[in-house]
Amino acid sequence: MGITLEQAETAIKAAKEKAKAIGTLMNIAVVDAGANLTAFVRMDGAWLGSVDIAQKKAKTARYFDMPSGEIGKLSQPGGSLYNIEHSNGGLITFPGGIPIKNSDGEIIGAIGVSGSTVENDHAVAQAGVDALS
Amino acid sequence: MGITLEQAETAIKAAKEKAKAIGTLMNIAVVDAGANLTAFVRMDGAWLGSVDIAQKKAKTARYFDMPSGEIGKLSQPGGSLYNIEHSNGGLITFPGGIPIKNSDGEIIGAIGVSGSTVENDHAVAQAGVDALS
Amino acid sequence: MGITLEQAETAIKAAKEKAKAIGTLMNIAVVDAGANLTAFVRMDGAWLGSVDIAQKKAKTARYFDMPSGEIGKLSQPGGSLYNIEHSNGGLITFPGGIPIKNSDGEIIGAIGVSGSTVENDHAVAQAGVDALS
Amino acid sequence: MGITLEQAETAIKAAKEKAKAIGTLMNIAVVDAGANLTAFVRMDGAWLGSVDIAQKKAKTARYFDMPSGEIGKLSQPGGSLYNIEHSNGGLITFPGGIPIKNSDGEIIGAIGVSGSTVENDHAVAQAGVDALS
Repeated sequence: MGITLEQAETAIKAAKEKAKAIGTLMNIAVVDAGANLTAFVRMDGAWLGSVDIAQKKAKTARYFDMPSGEIGKLSQPGGSLYNIEHSNGGLITFPGGIPIKNSDGEIIGAIGVSGSTVENDHAVAQAGVDALS
Repeated sequence: MGITLEQAETAIKAAKEKAKAIGTLMNIAVVDAGANLTAFVRMDGAWLGSVDIAQKKAKTARYFDMPSGEIGKLSQPGGSLYNIEHSNGGLITFPGGIPIKNSDGEIIGAIGVSGSTVENDHAVAQAGVDALS
Repeated sequence: MGITLEQAETAIKAAKEKAKAIGTLMNIAVVDAGANLTAFVRMDGAWLGSVDIAQKKAKTARYFDMPSGEIGKLSQPGGSLYNIEHSNGGLITFPGGIPIKNSDGEIIGAIGVSGSTVENDHAVAQAGVDALS
Repeated sequence: MGITLEQAETAIKAAKEKAKAIGTLMNIAVVDAGANLTAFVRMDGAWLGSVDIAQKKAKTARYFDMPSGEIGKLSQPGGSLYNIEHSNGGLITFPGGIPIKNSDGEIIGAIGVSGSTVENDHAVAQAGVDALS
Protein backbone atom coordinates (compact mmCIF):
# COMPACT_ATOMS: atom_id res chain seq x y z
CA MET A 1 0.00 0.00 0.00
CA GLY A 2 2.84 2.36 -0.67
CA ILE A 3 4.34 4.35 2.18
CA THR A 4 5.95 2.48 5.05
CA LEU A 5 5.58 3.41 8.70
CA GLU A 6 9.26 4.30 8.72
CA GLN A 7 8.75 6.70 5.83
CA ALA A 8 5.65 8.16 7.47
CA GLU A 9 7.58 8.74 10.68
CA THR A 10 10.37 10.40 8.72
CA ALA A 11 7.85 12.75 7.15
CA ILE A 12 6.21 13.50 10.49
CA LYS A 13 9.57 14.16 12.15
CA ALA A 14 10.51 16.67 9.46
CA ALA A 15 7.09 18.28 9.64
CA LYS A 16 7.32 18.61 13.42
CA GLU A 17 10.73 20.26 13.13
CA LYS A 18 9.35 22.72 10.58
CA ALA A 19 6.37 23.42 12.83
CA LYS A 20 8.70 24.20 15.74
CA ALA A 21 10.97 26.32 13.52
CA ILE A 22 8.07 28.58 12.57
CA GLY A 23 6.58 28.62 16.07
CA THR A 24 3.40 26.64 15.48
CA LEU A 25 1.61 23.69 17.11
CA MET A 26 0.36 21.17 14.58
CA ASN A 27 -1.67 18.03 14.07
CA ILE A 28 0.08 15.90 11.45
CA ALA A 29 -1.43 12.87 9.69
CA VAL A 30 -0.02 10.52 7.07
CA VAL A 31 -2.17 8.16 4.99
CA ASP A 32 -1.02 5.40 2.66
CA ALA A 33 -1.81 4.80 -1.01
CA GLY A 34 -5.21 3.41 0.03
CA ALA A 35 -5.97 6.63 1.96
CA ASN A 36 -5.88 4.73 5.25
CA LEU A 37 -4.25 6.33 8.29
CA THR A 38 -0.64 5.26 8.77
CA ALA A 39 0.62 7.63 11.46
CA PHE A 40 -0.56 10.66 13.37
CA VAL A 41 0.75 13.03 16.03
CA ARG A 42 -0.75 16.00 17.83
CA MET A 43 1.83 18.38 19.26
CA ASP A 44 1.10 19.39 22.87
CA GLY A 45 -1.37 22.26 22.89
CA ALA A 46 -2.32 21.96 19.21
CA TRP A 47 -6.00 22.59 18.36
CA LEU A 48 -8.27 19.66 19.14
CA GLY A 49 -10.41 20.45 16.09
CA SER A 50 -7.40 19.88 13.89
CA VAL A 51 -7.18 16.18 14.79
CA ASP A 52 -9.94 15.54 12.29
CA ILE A 53 -8.94 18.24 9.82
CA ALA A 54 -5.36 17.00 9.46
CA GLN A 55 -6.63 13.52 8.65
CA LYS A 56 -9.25 14.84 6.22
CA LYS A 57 -6.62 16.95 4.42
CA ALA A 58 -4.38 13.93 3.98
CA LYS A 59 -7.29 11.86 2.67
CA THR A 60 -8.44 14.61 0.34
CA ALA A 61 -4.93 14.91 -1.12
CA ARG A 62 -4.76 11.17 -1.79
CA TYR A 63 -8.38 10.85 -2.95
CA PHE A 64 -7.65 13.24 -5.82
CA ASP A 65 -3.85 13.00 -6.06
CA MET A 66 -3.30 16.72 -5.72
CA PRO A 67 -2.79 19.24 -2.92
CA SER A 68 -6.01 19.74 -0.95
CA GLY A 69 -6.00 23.46 -1.73
CA GLU A 70 -6.28 22.74 -5.48
CA ILE A 71 -9.67 21.15 -4.85
CA GLY A 72 -10.72 24.19 -2.87
CA LYS A 73 -10.18 26.43 -5.89
CA LEU A 74 -12.81 24.42 -7.75
CA SER A 75 -15.30 23.89 -4.92
CA GLN A 76 -16.29 27.55 -4.49
CA PRO A 77 -19.81 28.75 -5.28
CA GLY A 78 -20.21 28.62 -9.05
CA GLY A 79 -17.13 26.41 -9.37
CA SER A 80 -17.12 23.08 -11.14
CA LEU A 81 -16.76 21.06 -7.92
CA TYR A 82 -19.07 23.19 -5.80
CA ASN A 83 -19.56 21.63 -2.35
CA ILE A 84 -17.57 18.50 -3.11
CA GLU A 85 -16.82 18.63 0.64
CA HIS A 86 -20.08 16.74 1.21
CA SER A 87 -18.58 13.56 -0.23
CA ASN A 88 -16.48 10.87 1.39
CA GLY A 89 -17.67 11.56 4.90
CA GLY A 90 -16.34 15.11 4.68
CA LEU A 91 -13.46 16.56 2.70
CA ILE A 92 -11.25 19.49 3.65
CA THR A 93 -10.27 21.41 0.56
CA PHE A 94 -8.09 24.23 1.83
CA PRO A 95 -4.28 23.96 1.89
CA GLY A 96 -2.40 21.61 4.18
CA GLY A 97 -2.78 18.27 2.41
CA ILE A 98 -0.16 17.09 -0.11
CA PRO A 99 0.41 13.77 -1.91
CA ILE A 100 3.65 11.95 -1.16
CA LYS A 101 5.54 10.39 -4.08
CA ASN A 102 8.37 7.91 -4.24
CA SER A 103 11.53 8.44 -6.29
CA ASP A 104 9.74 7.07 -9.37
CA GLY A 105 7.07 9.74 -9.07
CA GLU A 106 4.42 7.28 -7.96
CA ILE A 107 2.04 8.45 -5.26
CA ILE A 108 2.54 6.32 -2.16
CA GLY A 109 0.38 8.30 0.27
CA ALA A 110 -0.29 11.81 1.50
CA ILE A 111 0.31 14.11 4.46
CA GLY A 112 -2.18 16.45 6.09
CA VAL A 113 -1.33 19.24 8.53
CA SER A 114 -3.63 21.48 10.57
CA GLY A 115 -3.05 23.91 13.42
CA SER A 116 -2.19 27.36 12.09
CA THR A 117 -2.85 29.48 8.99
CA VAL A 118 -3.33 27.48 5.83
CA GLU A 119 -0.05 28.87 4.54
CA ASN A 120 1.77 27.52 7.57
CA ASP A 121 -0.13 24.26 7.40
CA HIS A 122 0.93 23.83 3.77
CA ALA A 123 4.56 24.74 4.52
CA VAL A 124 4.75 22.16 7.29
CA ALA A 125 3.15 19.52 5.08
CA GLN A 126 5.67 20.36 2.33
CA ALA A 127 8.53 19.85 4.79
CA GLY A 128 7.18 16.37 5.40
CA VAL A 129 6.97 15.64 1.70
CA ASP A 130 10.48 16.98 1.07
CA ALA A 131 11.95 14.68 3.69
CA LEU A 132 11.04 11.71 1.50
CA SER A 133 12.12 13.07 -1.87
CA MET B 1 -10.46 18.23 32.54
CA GLY B 2 -10.74 21.90 33.30
CA ILE B 3 -14.09 23.38 34.16
CA THR B 4 -16.11 21.99 37.08
CA LEU B 5 -19.86 21.47 37.03
CA GLU B 6 -20.19 24.23 39.62
CA GLN B 7 -18.34 26.63 37.33
CA ALA B 8 -20.41 25.52 34.36
CA GLU B 9 -23.61 26.11 36.30
CA THR B 10 -22.38 29.56 37.33
CA ALA B 11 -21.76 30.42 33.69
CA ILE B 12 -25.15 29.08 32.61
CA LYS B 13 -26.95 31.00 35.38
CA ALA B 14 -25.35 34.26 34.30
CA ALA B 15 -26.08 33.53 30.66
CA LYS B 16 -29.73 32.78 31.44
CA GLU B 17 -30.06 36.06 33.33
CA LYS B 18 -28.58 37.94 30.40
CA ALA B 19 -30.93 36.14 28.02
CA LYS B 20 -33.92 37.18 30.11
CA ALA B 21 -32.63 40.75 30.42
CA ILE B 22 -32.57 41.15 26.64
CA GLY B 23 -35.82 39.26 26.11
CA THR B 24 -34.54 36.13 24.39
CA LEU B 25 -34.99 32.36 24.78
CA MET B 26 -31.73 30.46 24.56
CA ASN B 27 -30.11 27.06 24.46
CA ILE B 28 -26.88 27.18 26.48
CA ALA B 29 -24.16 24.52 26.46
CA VAL B 30 -20.86 24.25 28.32
CA VAL B 31 -18.07 21.86 27.36
CA ASP B 32 -14.90 21.04 29.29
CA ALA B 33 -11.27 21.29 28.16
CA GLY B 34 -11.67 18.04 26.25
CA ALA B 35 -14.70 19.44 24.37
CA ASN B 36 -17.03 17.02 26.19
CA LEU B 37 -20.46 18.27 27.31
CA THR B 38 -20.54 19.34 30.96
CA ALA B 39 -23.91 21.10 31.30
CA PHE B 40 -26.80 22.24 29.12
CA VAL B 41 -30.12 24.02 29.48
CA ARG B 42 -32.86 24.97 27.05
CA MET B 43 -35.06 27.82 28.21
CA ASP B 44 -38.79 27.13 27.80
CA GLY B 45 -39.84 27.95 24.26
CA ALA B 46 -36.29 28.20 22.88
CA TRP B 47 -35.72 26.87 19.36
CA LEU B 48 -35.37 23.08 19.18
CA GLY B 49 -32.84 23.37 16.36
CA SER B 50 -30.59 25.29 18.69
CA VAL B 51 -30.08 22.31 20.99
CA ASP B 52 -27.50 21.01 18.56
CA ILE B 53 -26.19 24.40 17.46
CA ALA B 54 -25.43 25.55 21.00
CA GLN B 55 -23.41 22.39 21.59
CA LYS B 56 -21.60 22.68 18.25
CA LYS B 57 -20.74 26.33 18.96
CA ALA B 58 -19.22 25.39 22.31
CA LYS B 59 -17.24 22.59 20.71
CA THR B 60 -16.07 24.80 17.85
CA ALA B 61 -14.83 27.43 20.32
CA ARG B 62 -12.82 24.84 22.24
CA TYR B 63 -11.64 22.98 19.14
CA PHE B 64 -9.87 26.13 17.91
CA ASP B 65 -9.53 28.13 21.14
CA MET B 66 -11.27 31.19 19.76
CA PRO B 67 -14.81 32.56 19.45
CA SER B 68 -16.79 30.54 16.92
CA GLY B 69 -17.48 33.65 14.86
CA GLU B 70 -13.77 34.13 14.20
CA ILE B 71 -13.75 30.87 12.29
CA GLY B 72 -16.76 32.00 10.30
CA LYS B 73 -14.91 35.05 9.01
CA LEU B 74 -12.42 32.71 7.38
CA SER B 75 -14.80 29.99 6.17
CA GLN B 76 -16.74 32.11 3.68
CA PRO B 77 -16.59 31.38 -0.07
CA GLY B 78 -13.13 32.40 -1.19
CA GLY B 79 -11.88 32.44 2.41
CA SER B 80 -8.91 30.43 3.61
CA LEU B 81 -11.04 28.01 5.66
CA TYR B 82 -13.93 27.61 3.22
CA ASN B 83 -16.24 24.77 4.25
CA ILE B 84 -14.29 23.86 7.38
CA GLU B 85 -17.77 23.16 8.78
CA HIS B 86 -17.60 19.69 7.21
CA SER B 87 -14.99 18.58 9.75
CA ASN B 88 -15.44 17.18 13.24
CA GLY B 89 -18.94 15.89 12.61
CA GLY B 90 -20.16 19.41 11.91
CA LEU B 91 -18.91 22.78 13.13
CA ILE B 92 -20.94 25.95 13.67
CA THR B 93 -18.83 28.96 12.79
CA PHE B 94 -21.06 31.95 13.41
CA PRO B 95 -21.00 33.85 16.71
CA GLY B 96 -22.25 32.39 19.99
CA GLY B 97 -19.37 30.15 21.06
CA ILE B 98 -16.59 31.48 23.32
CA PRO B 99 -13.71 29.77 25.15
CA ILE B 100 -13.73 29.94 28.95
CA LYS B 101 -10.43 30.67 30.71
CA ASN B 102 -9.36 30.37 34.33
CA SER B 103 -7.62 33.14 36.24
CA ASP B 104 -4.25 32.00 34.85
CA GLY B 105 -5.52 32.50 31.31
CA GLU B 106 -5.68 28.77 30.59
CA ILE B 107 -8.63 27.53 28.57
CA ILE B 108 -10.76 25.26 30.75
CA GLY B 109 -13.75 24.83 28.44
CA ALA B 110 -16.16 26.80 26.30
CA ILE B 111 -19.75 28.03 26.21
CA GLY B 112 -22.12 27.94 23.24
CA VAL B 113 -25.40 29.84 22.96
CA SER B 114 -28.10 29.65 20.29
CA GLY B 115 -31.65 30.97 20.08
CA SER B 116 -31.68 34.52 18.75
CA THR B 117 -29.59 36.75 16.47
CA VAL B 118 -25.94 35.85 16.46
CA GLU B 119 -25.23 39.18 18.16
CA ASN B 120 -27.55 38.24 21.00
CA ASP B 121 -26.18 34.71 21.11
CA HIS B 122 -22.66 36.10 21.47
CA ALA B 123 -23.69 38.61 24.14
CA VAL B 124 -25.33 35.89 26.21
CA ALA B 125 -22.29 33.63 25.84
CA GLN B 126 -20.05 36.51 26.92
CA ALA B 127 -22.16 36.99 30.05
CA GLY B 128 -21.47 33.36 30.88
CA VAL B 129 -17.75 33.81 30.34
CA ASP B 130 -17.66 37.00 32.41
CA ALA B 131 -19.26 35.25 35.37
CA LEU B 132 -16.15 33.11 35.73
CA SER B 133 -13.50 35.79 35.28
CA MET C 1 -43.69 20.36 24.69
CA GLY C 2 -44.40 19.21 28.22
CA ILE C 3 -41.72 19.52 30.83
CA THR C 4 -40.44 22.97 31.76
CA LEU C 5 -36.81 23.80 32.40
CA GLU C 6 -37.72 24.44 36.03
CA GLN C 7 -39.19 20.95 36.31
CA ALA C 8 -36.18 19.45 34.55
CA GLU C 9 -33.86 21.20 36.96
CA THR C 10 -35.91 19.94 39.90
CA ALA C 11 -35.56 16.39 38.61
CA ILE C 12 -31.83 16.80 38.02
CA LYS C 13 -31.29 18.27 41.48
CA ALA C 14 -33.04 15.31 43.11
CA ALA C 15 -31.14 12.87 40.93
CA LYS C 16 -27.83 14.49 41.83
CA GLU C 17 -28.66 14.25 45.54
CA LYS C 18 -29.50 10.57 45.14
CA ALA C 19 -26.29 10.00 43.21
CA LYS C 20 -24.27 11.58 46.02
CA ALA C 21 -26.20 9.66 48.67
CA ILE C 22 -25.21 6.34 47.09
CA GLY C 23 -21.66 7.45 46.31
CA THR C 24 -21.80 7.61 42.52
CA LEU C 25 -20.84 10.10 39.80
CA MET C 26 -23.51 10.48 37.16
CA ASN C 27 -24.40 12.03 33.84
CA ILE C 28 -28.04 13.12 33.97
CA ALA C 29 -30.14 14.16 30.98
CA VAL C 30 -33.76 15.32 30.69
CA VAL C 31 -35.67 15.44 27.41
CA ASP C 32 -39.07 16.97 26.77
CA ALA C 33 -42.21 15.41 25.26
CA GLY C 34 -40.64 15.82 21.80
CA ALA C 35 -37.55 13.86 22.94
CA ASN C 36 -35.42 16.98 22.59
CA LEU C 37 -32.75 17.72 25.20
CA THR C 38 -33.96 20.12 27.89
CA ALA C 39 -31.21 19.96 30.50
CA PHE C 40 -28.04 17.99 31.20
CA VAL C 41 -25.33 17.83 33.84
CA ARG C 42 -22.18 15.76 34.21
CA MET C 43 -20.96 15.47 37.78
CA ASP C 44 -17.22 16.11 38.14
CA GLY C 45 -15.33 12.93 37.37
CA ALA C 46 -18.30 11.08 35.87
CA TRP C 47 -17.56 8.84 32.87
CA LEU C 48 -17.17 10.72 29.59
CA GLY C 49 -18.79 7.89 27.68
CA SER C 50 -21.94 8.38 29.70
CA VAL C 51 -22.56 11.86 28.26
CA ASP C 52 -24.02 10.19 25.21
CA ILE C 53 -25.54 7.20 27.01
CA ALA C 54 -27.52 9.34 29.48
CA GLN C 55 -29.03 11.27 26.59
CA LYS C 56 -29.79 8.10 24.61
CA LYS C 57 -31.48 6.51 27.63
CA ALA C 58 -33.72 9.54 28.08
CA LYS C 59 -34.61 9.53 24.39
CA THR C 60 -35.25 5.80 24.37
CA ALA C 61 -37.60 6.13 27.35
CA ARG C 62 -39.61 8.87 25.62
CA TYR C 63 -39.48 7.28 22.16
CA PHE C 64 -41.35 4.26 23.51
CA ASP C 65 -42.95 5.71 26.67
CA MET C 66 -41.50 3.09 28.96
CA PRO C 67 -38.34 2.58 31.01
CA SER C 68 -35.36 1.95 28.73
CA GLY C 69 -34.70 -1.39 30.38
CA GLU C 70 -38.10 -2.69 29.28
CA ILE C 71 -36.98 -2.35 25.68
CA GLY C 72 -33.81 -4.24 26.49
CA LYS C 73 -35.80 -7.28 27.60
CA LEU C 74 -37.25 -7.51 24.09
CA SER C 75 -34.12 -6.64 22.08
CA GLN C 76 -32.10 -9.71 23.03
CA PRO C 77 -31.16 -12.35 20.43
CA GLY C 78 -34.35 -14.16 19.50
CA GLY C 79 -36.47 -11.41 21.05
CA SER C 80 -39.21 -9.58 19.23
CA LEU C 81 -37.26 -6.32 19.03
CA TYR C 82 -33.86 -7.84 18.35
CA ASN C 83 -31.27 -5.15 17.65
CA ILE C 84 -33.72 -2.27 17.81
CA GLU C 85 -30.69 -0.32 19.05
CA HIS C 86 -29.78 0.29 15.39
CA SER C 87 -32.68 2.71 14.97
CA ASN C 88 -32.94 6.41 15.77
CA GLY C 89 -29.24 7.08 15.54
CA GLY C 90 -28.61 4.60 18.36
CA LEU C 91 -30.79 3.54 21.27
CA ILE C 92 -29.65 2.44 24.72
CA THR C 93 -31.96 -0.23 26.04
CA PHE C 94 -30.60 -1.11 29.45
CA PRO C 95 -31.95 0.53 32.66
CA GLY C 96 -31.44 4.20 33.51
CA GLY C 97 -34.06 5.91 31.33
CA ILE C 98 -37.57 6.57 32.70
CA PRO C 99 -40.52 8.59 31.34
CA ILE C 100 -41.64 11.58 33.40
CA LYS C 101 -45.38 12.11 33.87
CA ASN C 102 -47.39 15.06 35.14
CA SER C 103 -50.05 14.81 37.86
CA ASP C 104 -52.60 13.80 35.19
CA GLY C 105 -50.47 10.85 34.20
CA GLU C 106 -49.49 12.37 30.86
CA ILE C 107 -45.92 11.86 29.74
CA ILE C 108 -44.15 15.22 29.62
CA GLY C 109 -40.60 14.01 29.03
CA ALA C 110 -38.02 11.54 30.28
CA ILE C 111 -34.84 11.32 32.33
CA GLY C 112 -31.72 9.32 31.51
CA VAL C 113 -28.89 8.53 33.91
CA SER C 114 -25.52 6.87 33.27
CA GLY C 115 -22.38 6.49 35.34
CA SER C 116 -22.58 3.40 37.53
CA THR C 117 -24.27 0.00 37.54
CA VAL C 118 -27.58 -0.07 35.71
CA GLU C 119 -29.31 -0.64 39.05
CA ASN C 120 -27.78 2.56 40.42
CA ASP C 121 -28.48 4.40 37.18
CA HIS C 122 -32.14 3.40 37.39
CA ALA C 123 -32.40 4.35 41.07
CA VAL C 124 -30.98 7.80 40.40
CA ALA C 125 -33.32 8.29 37.45
CA GLN C 126 -36.25 7.22 39.64
CA ALA C 127 -35.29 9.83 42.23
CA GLY C 128 -35.53 12.43 39.48
CA VAL C 129 -38.95 11.17 38.43
CA ASP C 130 -40.21 11.05 42.02
CA ALA C 131 -39.26 14.69 42.58
CA LEU C 132 -41.92 15.69 40.05
CA SER C 133 -44.73 13.41 41.19
CA MET D 1 -5.32 17.46 28.88
CA GLY D 2 -3.21 14.82 30.55
CA ILE D 3 -0.79 12.80 28.45
CA THR D 4 1.92 14.57 26.46
CA LEU D 5 2.98 13.62 22.96
CA GLU D 6 6.34 12.51 24.36
CA GLN D 7 4.58 10.16 26.77
CA ALA D 8 2.31 8.90 24.02
CA GLU D 9 5.30 8.17 21.81
CA THR D 10 7.02 6.35 24.66
CA ALA D 11 3.95 4.16 25.08
CA ILE D 12 3.69 3.50 21.35
CA LYS D 13 7.39 2.63 21.09
CA ALA D 14 7.09 0.07 23.88
CA ALA D 15 3.92 -1.32 22.37
CA LYS D 16 5.56 -1.69 18.96
CA GLU D 17 8.51 -3.54 20.50
CA LYS D 18 6.13 -5.90 22.27
CA ALA D 19 4.22 -6.43 19.03
CA LYS D 20 7.43 -7.37 17.23
CA ALA D 21 8.55 -9.60 20.09
CA ILE D 22 5.40 -11.69 19.79
CA GLY D 23 5.36 -11.62 16.00
CA THR D 24 2.31 -9.46 15.37
CA LEU D 25 1.44 -6.42 13.26
CA MET D 26 -0.55 -3.81 15.14
CA ASN D 27 -2.42 -0.55 14.93
CA ILE D 28 -1.73 1.48 18.06
CA ALA D 29 -3.63 4.60 19.16
CA VAL D 30 -3.23 6.88 22.17
CA VAL D 31 -5.89 9.37 23.31
CA ASP D 32 -5.60 12.06 25.94
CA ALA D 33 -7.72 12.65 29.06
CA GLY D 34 -10.40 14.21 26.87
CA ALA D 35 -10.50 11.11 24.65
CA ASN D 36 -9.00 13.06 21.74
CA LEU D 37 -6.41 11.34 19.52
CA THR D 38 -2.83 12.18 20.49
CA ALA D 39 -0.77 9.72 18.44
CA PHE D 40 -1.27 6.74 16.17
CA VAL D 41 0.84 4.27 14.19
CA ARG D 42 0.00 1.38 11.89
CA MET D 43 2.78 -1.15 11.51
CA ASP D 44 3.46 -2.14 7.89
CA GLY D 45 1.03 -4.84 6.85
CA ALA D 46 -1.27 -4.44 9.85
CA TRP D 47 -5.02 -4.83 9.22
CA LEU D 48 -6.64 -1.76 7.70
CA GLY D 49 -9.85 -2.40 9.62
CA SER D 50 -7.91 -2.05 12.83
CA VAL D 51 -7.16 1.63 12.19
CA ASP D 52 -10.62 2.45 13.46
CA ILE D 53 -10.79 -0.32 16.05
CA ALA D 54 -7.57 0.72 17.77
CA GLN D 55 -8.89 4.26 18.11
CA LYS D 56 -12.30 3.09 19.35
CA LYS D 57 -10.65 0.81 21.92
CA ALA D 58 -8.60 3.71 23.27
CA LYS D 59 -11.68 5.92 23.43
CA THR D 60 -13.75 3.20 25.08
CA ALA D 61 -11.09 2.70 27.76
CA ARG D 62 -11.04 6.41 28.55
CA TYR D 63 -14.80 6.85 28.26
CA PHE D 64 -15.34 4.38 31.10
CA ASP D 65 -11.93 4.44 32.82
CA MET D 66 -11.42 0.70 32.56
CA PRO D 67 -10.00 -1.82 30.09
CA SER D 68 -12.25 -2.10 27.05
CA GLY D 69 -12.69 -5.83 27.61
CA GLU D 70 -14.33 -5.20 30.98
CA ILE D 71 -17.18 -3.47 29.18
CA GLY D 72 -17.48 -6.41 26.83
CA LYS D 73 -18.11 -8.80 29.70
CA LEU D 74 -21.24 -6.81 30.52
CA SER D 75 -22.45 -6.07 26.99
CA GLN D 76 -23.20 -9.66 25.95
CA PRO D 77 -26.75 -10.80 25.20
CA GLY D 78 -28.54 -10.90 28.52
CA GLY D 79 -25.84 -8.75 30.16
CA SER D 80 -26.52 -5.50 31.94
CA LEU D 81 -24.91 -3.35 29.24
CA TYR D 82 -26.17 -5.25 26.19
CA ASN D 83 -25.52 -3.31 22.98
CA ILE D 84 -23.78 -0.39 24.69
CA GLU D 85 -21.63 -0.42 21.54
CA HIS D 86 -24.31 1.67 19.82
CA SER D 87 -23.39 4.71 21.90
CA ASN D 88 -20.72 7.33 21.36
CA GLY D 89 -20.53 6.82 17.62
CA GLY D 90 -19.46 3.21 18.12
CA LEU D 91 -17.60 1.55 20.97
CA ILE D 92 -15.31 -1.48 20.81
CA THR D 93 -15.71 -3.55 23.94
CA PHE D 94 -13.35 -6.47 23.51
CA PRO D 95 -9.81 -6.38 24.95
CA GLY D 96 -7.06 -4.10 23.62
CA GLY D 97 -7.92 -0.75 25.23
CA ILE D 98 -6.42 0.23 28.60
CA PRO D 99 -6.44 3.52 30.54
CA ILE D 100 -3.08 5.19 31.14
CA LYS D 101 -2.41 6.64 34.61
CA ASN D 102 0.25 8.99 35.91
CA SER D 103 2.33 8.29 39.01
CA ASP D 104 -0.43 9.77 41.18
CA GLY D 105 -2.90 7.24 39.81
CA GLU D 106 -4.82 9.83 37.80
CA ILE D 107 -6.00 8.78 34.36
CA ILE D 108 -4.20 10.87 31.75
CA GLY D 109 -5.37 9.05 28.63
CA ALA D 110 -5.67 5.59 27.15
CA ILE D 111 -4.09 3.25 24.61
CA GLY D 112 -5.88 1.07 22.10
CA VAL D 113 -4.32 -1.78 20.11
CA SER D 114 -5.79 -3.88 17.30
CA GLY D 115 -4.30 -6.31 14.81
CA SER D 116 -4.16 -9.80 16.29
CA THR D 117 -6.02 -11.92 18.81
CA VAL D 118 -7.61 -9.90 21.57
CA GLU D 119 -5.19 -11.51 24.01
CA ASN D 120 -2.27 -10.24 21.96
CA ASP D 121 -3.91 -6.85 21.49
CA HIS D 122 -4.30 -6.53 25.26
CA ALA D 123 -0.73 -7.64 25.92
CA VAL D 124 0.65 -5.07 23.51
CA ALA D 125 -1.52 -2.34 25.03
CA GLN D 126 -0.32 -3.33 28.49
CA ALA D 127 3.28 -2.98 27.33
CA GLY D 128 2.47 0.58 26.33
CA VAL D 129 0.91 1.30 29.69
CA ASP D 130 3.81 -0.26 31.58
CA ALA D 131 6.31 1.98 29.79
CA LEU D 132 4.79 5.00 31.52
CA SER D 133 4.45 3.57 35.02
